[in-house]
Amino acid sequence: MARIICAGLGPGDPDLISVRADRALRGAAQIAYFRKAGRRGQARSIVEGMLAPGVTEYAMEYPVTTELPFDSPAYIEALARFYDIWADRLASLPGEVVVLCEGDPFFYGSFMHLYARLKDRVEVSVIPGITGMAGCWHATGQPITWGDDVLSVLMGTLPEPDLVAHMQRADALAVMKTGRNLPKIRRALESAGRLSEAWLVERGTMPGQRIAPLAEVDTADCPYFAVVLVHGHGRRPEIAE
Amino acid sequence: MARIICAGLGPGDPDLISVRADRALRGAAQIAYFRKAGRRGQARSIVEGMLAPGVTEYAMEYPVTTELPFDSPAYIEALARFYDIWADRLASLPGEVVVLCEGDPFFYGSFMHLYARLKDRVEVSVIPGITGMAGCWHATGQPITWGDDVLSVLMGTLPEPDLVAHMQRADALAVMKTGRNLPKIRRALESAGRLSEAWLVERGTMPGQRIAPLAEVDTADCPYFAVVLVHGHGRRPEIAE
Repeated sequence: MARIICAGLGPGDPDLISVRADRALRGAAQIAYFRKAGRRGQARSIVEGMLAPGVTEYAMEYPVTTELPFDSPAYIEALARFYDIWADRLASLPGEVVVLCEGDPFFYGSFMHLYARLKDRVEVSVIPGITGMAGCWHATGQPITWGDDVLSVLMGTLPEPDLVAHMQRADALAVMKTGRNLPKIRRALESAGRLSEAWLVERGTMPGQRIAPLAEVDTADCPYFAVVLVHGHGRRPEIAE
Repeated sequence: MARIICAGLGPGDPDLISVRADRALRGAAQIAYFRKAGRRGQARSIVEGMLAPGVTEYAMEYPVTTELPFDSPAYIEALARFYDIWADRLASLPGEVVVLCEGDPFFYGSFMHLYARLKDRVEVSVIPGITGMAGCWHATGQPITWGDDVLSVLMGTLPEPDLVAHMQRADALAVMKTGRNLPKIRRALESAGRLSEAWLVERGTMPGQRIAPLAEVDTADCPYFAVVLVHGHGRRPEIAE
């Protein structure tokens, strides 16, 4: 019966993988990873050059459903079947399988859909990773938070009024799932009075890393995995009376 | 003139340090780290057994000011002088100095006080780390966020009404700086209707790791570095009309 190890790969630079995950990856005889059909896949790209010769690879390709919108019940159903099938397949493999996961597997990671299906059936261990958003804040060369700052992590898919409410209340912000949501994110930051402090970071810690003030970016052209950041200013503790 | 490398040490398990930071630590001829006077220091403990023989160590001991409250202007002033002195001292060292920093240096890290003083004077590079709170959510064995969850990171030092407002609005929560703030954090979670979902995690990924439902914990006895976590439930994207 399989033993599953999910290795968090961190933000993209292979040198930022943890010592434990690095060891698991280099020693793996079987690996599995998600990717879009027809693509190489970001997770697989990160580990290029690290794998042992003769490793068996399982590319878990998301179902292609050009006829279904991404958020429709039918697509969500197709995705659930896809996770069911791969959970069964991985569970039936002989010996250890290392599943690659960008960033940290327990922080918005797709692995959780396999984890939920596998954890009571086979031995599963999860190796933490540096998050993609941390790679992005390091790319900006300044701390995202200090002192008593509140950090809120938001998805660009949220309704605009929710985005505005969080943006007004938090000190520091990280907004993920940008892409075609970027015009909405930009409007929300403007409503919250935070646009002038916002940065757009693409490919943090990776080749082709790009950082720009969001106000100067063409919002029509933004990859889904770019992150919008607003840095905290170091909220001071309340002085006791 | 010195070259400063700040190495993020991650949540505590040395196996979770990044490959790059691991290499910097093992190769270091000079290291520096913060600690309370008279203590060994958590950062120094994490790297025990990893350092080269003959490494020169600089323990940067926080000023002891039992007569001053932690949040008084006089204490803050003493701390600023302390950072000034150490920034000067590190800048004047010959060659490379590796500064140890628990977690991620740009996420609530004390290093930022040195970084602000050094970055325009000497070469400074910062190696990201897995955050302490990520070590804690991994200790719980379940994802902290998925789908469209909002995560808010809060300090227990915040005023209670601010805590309540954030706790009501976010899906997932990580509350740091607990210690003697724990009774207040607990009341705020109760007001926000989130207490039954909250976990207290101490020493995530380290020996002596402890996890308990917060509702069952004696709030009078809590270390400052324990983290309170509430997991998200995977907010679904809004279905487009």
